[in-house]
Amino acid sequence: MIRKKIRLLSLVLLFSIIPQTLSSQVFKLSDYLKEGEKDATLSVITMLQDASKYKNSKVIIGKGTYHFYPEKAYEQYCFITNHDNSLRRIAFPINDFDGLTIEAKGAKFIFHGVMMPFNIENSKNIDISGLTIDWYLPLHGEGLIEANDTINNTFDLRLADNMPYTIRNEQLIFIKEGFEHDLNHAILFDPKRKAVAYNTAKYTPLNMVNHIEIRNKDQFDFPNYIDFRIPEYEGQNREYSIKAVEIEPGLVRISGNEKALPPVGQVLVCKGQFGKDRIANAFYINKSSNVNLHNLTIHYAGGMGILGERSQDIVLDSIKILANPENKLMVSTSADAAHFSSCKGKIVVNNCNFRHQLDDAINVHGAYVIVEDVLGPDKLGVRIGHFQQAGFQFAEQGDNLGFINPKESAEVEFKTSVKSFYKLNKDYYIITFNEEITNKLSKGYVVENLDWYPEVTITNSQFADNRARGLLLKSPKKTIVRNNYFSNMMQALIISNGINTWWYESGGAQDMIIEGNVFGDCNYDGGKRPVISIGGELGIGGRKLGKIVINNNTFNNFNPSIIKATGVKHLEFTNIIINNSKTFAATEPDDYVIDLEQIETLKIKNIKISKDFKNKVKAEEIKNEY
Amino acid sequence: MIRKKIRLLSLVLLFSIIPQTLSSQVFKLSDYLKEGEKDATLSVITMLQDASKYKNSKVIIGKGTYHFYPEKAYEQYCFITNHDNSLRRIAFPINDFDGLTIEAKGAKFIFHGVMMPFNIENSKNIDISGLTIDWYLPLHGEGLIEANDTINNTFDLRLADNMPYTIRNEQLIFIKEGFEHDLNHAILFDPKRKAVAYNTAKYTPLNMVNHIEIRNKDQFDFPNYIDFRIPEYEGQNREYSIKAVEIEPGLVRISGNEKALPPVGQVLVCKGQFGKDRIANAFYINKSSNVNLHNLTIHYAGGMGILGERSQDIVLDSIKILANPENKLMVSTSADAAHFSSCKGKIVVNNCNFRHQLDDAINVHGAYVIVEDVLGPDKLGVRIGHFQQAGFQFAEQGDNLGFINPKESAEVEFKTSVKSFYKLNKDYYIITFNEEITNKLSKGYVVENLDWYPEVTITNSQFADNRARGLLLKSPKKTIVRNNYFSNMMQALIISNGINTWWYESGGAQDMIIEGNVFGDCNYDGGKRPVISIGGELGIGGRKLGKIVINNNTFNNFNPSIIKATGVKHLEFTNIIINNSKTFAATEPDDYVIDLEQIETLKIKNIKISKDFKNKVKAEEIKNEY
Repeated sequence: MIRKKIRLLSLVLLFSIIPQTLSSQVFKLSDYLKEGEKDATLSVITMLQDASKYKNSKVIIGKGTYHFYPEKAYEQYCFITNHDNSLRRIAFPINDFDGLTIEAKGAKFIFHGVMMPFNIENSKNIDISGLTIDWYLPLHGEGLIEANDTINNTFDLRLADNMPYTIRNEQLIFIKEGFEHDLNHAILFDPKRKAVAYNTAKYTPLNMVNHIEIRNKDQFDFPNYIDFRIPEYEGQNREYSIKAVEIEPGLVRISGNEKALPPVGQVLVCKGQFGKDRIANAFYINKSSNVNLHNLTIHYAGGMGILGERSQDIVLDSIKILANPENKLMVSTSADAAHFSSCKGKIVVNNCNFRHQLDDAINVHGAYVIVEDVLGPDKLGVRIGHFQQAGFQFAEQGDNLGFINPKESAEVEFKTSVKSFYKLNKDYYIITFNEEITNKLSKGYVVENLDWYPEVTITNSQFADNRARGLLLKSPKKTIVRNNYFSNMMQALIISNGINTWWYESGGAQDMIIEGNVFGDCNYDGGKRPVISIGGELGIGGRKLGKIVINNNTFNNFNPSIIKATGVKHLEFTNIIINNSKTFAATEPDDYVIDLEQIETLKIKNIKISKDFKNKVKAEEIKNEY
Repeated sequence: MIRKKIRLLSLVLLFSIIPQTLSSQVFKLSDYLKEGEKDATLSVITMLQDASKYKNSKVIIGKGTYHFYPEKAYEQYCFITNHDNSLRRIAFPINDFDGLTIEAKGAKFIFHGVMMPFNIENSKNIDISGLTIDWYLPLHGEGLIEANDTINNTFDLRLADNMPYTIRNEQLIFIKEGFEHDLNHAILFDPKRKAVAYNTAKYTPLNMVNHIEIRNKDQFDFPNYIDFRIPEYEGQNREYSIKAVEIEPGLVRISGNEKALPPVGQVLVCKGQFGKDRIANAFYINKSSNVNLHNLTIHYAGGMGILGERSQDIVLDSIKILANPENKLMVSTSADAAHFSSCKGKIVVNNCNFRHQLDDAINVHGAYVIVEDVLGPDKLGVRIGHFQQAGFQFAEQGDNLGFINPKESAEVEFKTSVKSFYKLNKDYYIITFNEEITNKLSKGYVVENLDWYPEVTITNSQFADNRARGLLLKSPKKTIVRNNYFSNMMQALIISNGINTWWYESGGAQDMIIEGNVFGDCNYDGGKRPVISIGGELGIGGRKLGKIVINNNTFNNFNPSIIKATGVKHLEFTNIIINNSKTFAATEPDDYVIDLEQIETLKIKNIKISKDFKNKVKAEEIKNEY
């Protein structure tokens, strides 16, 4: 009888358990590729489906160039935070894996059209290394400013062969494979520096639309909340005010722009209107844990490079995200290099080089939702804050939430835990709680997920030459920024404290160390900002930040403004060297180098400031200083 | 011991089975609605979620007007054949129900914006009755032709209050709630007849686009099949050639149209370009069985009225689909009134009245897929034929498929059954078979699902005053068309036999009775067609149709052409009265009344043809006649 039982057990093991526990089952892409087939996509997917049957599978992709097309890619509808949601065509669908290593040393992946290279979802223990991601034709537009004419207020764009285009009803339209966009969201790059151009804010974005009237608009009936910033509404009362005409093939003249004419020799970069500019991110890590990406290069993506959402323990080591010089393009990713929303565990970024993005280097945050309806004593209807968070997984059963009355304070007023979470649609969620708490709040309260913030360590990396910021850091957990180099169009660091009612990104630093970094020129777009912004929202709009230690950093900046901090409990700013880089003419020469307000405890010591900067320190409402 | 078992069983029943077997659990919407709440959507969804816990639930919705908005609607990504796929916002998500009756006598549902009223999916035994569906503001555009100017080649459109609009870069754009469209797909309606205008083909669709050149198009690389008819590609090399200017609020002048100027007093109706015109169908019945819709009215939908897909046994009884006279609109549904693709069992339509649609009254068909890749001895990669079939469920395990070599014949060459079916993406499916058959075929073969065709009975109904056709009938199963009235802009009946390489709709009638019907004026758009088209594709393009009996019908038509049939095994055309209606001037006075070709056995008897029609019968290649 006992013997029989054992035999039964081993049969069960043979047919169901063993395949899931066989370790290091190895799959080689070369065994799947078909002779003469140009598109590797279906071979990769077939291999991954085989690999998914085993735990801790290993996939080996040999040196060489592989092309990926959307036509035979895996498809799923993806709600991807800070992106445009869509039916994504995916080359590497890493869904529901328990252990997968992809070794692809020397493999160059070329993507075509609108695709998402990697989707890592509901998976754990994923290790990917060695490969390079690039695109056959870019999804954004670039053109060299070849001439400008101040009398007729026109400028001429030279479009290279890798920029298919058409002039449609007097508009320049960049034509892509199954996709297109206009001159919206333009910015200038300086090809000599291969960075955003000095003072680009004077010229870009182009002033290209007029507002127009909608007749019979009073007929519309909107009893519920609608975000009129969404593309479906935003464009309804706008028309183009600029015009394009082709002078000769490859040369297009733009007129009607009401901003200053962009200087000859600079490169105008654009990615089109909202809803079209974040559709082909490279890596999406969703509801996964222990993901290790290392020794990778991302030359291009039509969206972010690496996005972590509702995931924990992600390591990015030795990753380059920067434009491929062979392609003669200014841009690497059309949005952030890396971005982590509602993650927990540890986020580690080490030995990385992120450049040429059209948005921030790294952004780490949670996201608030907004109370819309009280549906019962323990039940709320909430809505998302920004349309590019639509569909994000705000919470799950067991999560601890904090409730904030933004009319009173930015601090959490009370807390409770989630009994159930239901997405009615991408904009509206229904949450029930383990306590009857809805009598304590009303419409307009904002809700924060207190459990999904990560510890962050960013070391030995370079963040430069991109549009927008270096690092945006909102996690209240331990955050370390050490031995990095920064040079960004806007601030190098933003450590914000507000319930920003545009993006509704949540959090507020409580324990942060910034040390051993070198800050090159920042804010060279012409904006009036410091290199490091801390806090900023005052009064009820801002949450008090905790302990922020900025020690042993060097700043080489063309403008004096280095740090502006407001609303911090404990701020240290010590052993700092501040030089005038003289790279550009200062755009804000009268700013204070150090500008502090509402600091409870301040330690400021051993600061060397260039004598060129006349206004050195402004400090108001400092409680204790030592 | 036995007693214990019984007790255990009853516990199981109590906690899991009983809730599923309680019959006629009744839910009243009035118990869910909140005082003063304008939007009934969330109340309805909450009620349905409660009802879904029981088998054979009954929902009662009292007399009154209920408003539904998309903001708090259920959402799912829907692949809906012959529509534009999208994230649909659904008011009645009837998913996974085993028995549901909705009684809503006297309930008027008003929908707002882009919504789908009913989704019936993976459900059985559904009975819905009593309600009326209408829209607050229509999703298509209408304007009265108030003037035209033959010297300047312009016409003036008067736009009523229910037509919010703007002029954007010289184009008239109809503005809707979260949606908009242009003048594409325009047609004229005659407001006196409340039907498509006589000879509209002379004026519409508007000639509104020019082709433009795409520079550097040789840079694109397309190694796989792409349907360049999809909206993402179709519009790339087009620009508007017409222009709009506002003369006064509510009056817009259109110039540049290269067709004849539309006559004053007629109503120009339009629904915009592909990809935007089929987004808000009223009923979607998907993967469900035994669905009974009766005593319903659909005044409006931005898509089809009722669509059945991969479902069986659907009854439509006493259903009106026609424009609400109170709204002063010409149009009811912007696509077909009812449509059945890949259904089986019985489709019954009785005592219905379908009018004012912008497409056919009823279309019944399957859909071919096309062999793209041989992936193994028992494995194929196939692609869909038309982009508006994207994502449809072509087959499932166990289905019997037929393979056709369209270069040789339209008949099935061999058959096999499905071992597994996998949708890699909405355009490309992978099928494995229970036999190794891929050596018998090659790329370009088309595949037909032989199991999913329904018996069809259409009786005692009216199909009139719509754009396009009456009935399109392709099922090879028993089909009865009895005691109906037809008057359609194009043919009343199309019984086609080809592998239409535009739509790839599959089938071919084998057993059909058409009797006791009255056919009013058809083809009044100005087209050269018969009232009944049978077959049409000759040679290898057409499949031989089976037995078609047309008996005891009356035709009152302004043109002589009544029937054109080619490629039929057995055709009867008996006891027929054909009158000249004289409603309009004949547009094709020289056509033959009866035009037959390639009929194996023909019975033609007791035909009375108006003496006005000079060319009466043409018959070629008739094998037997009796």
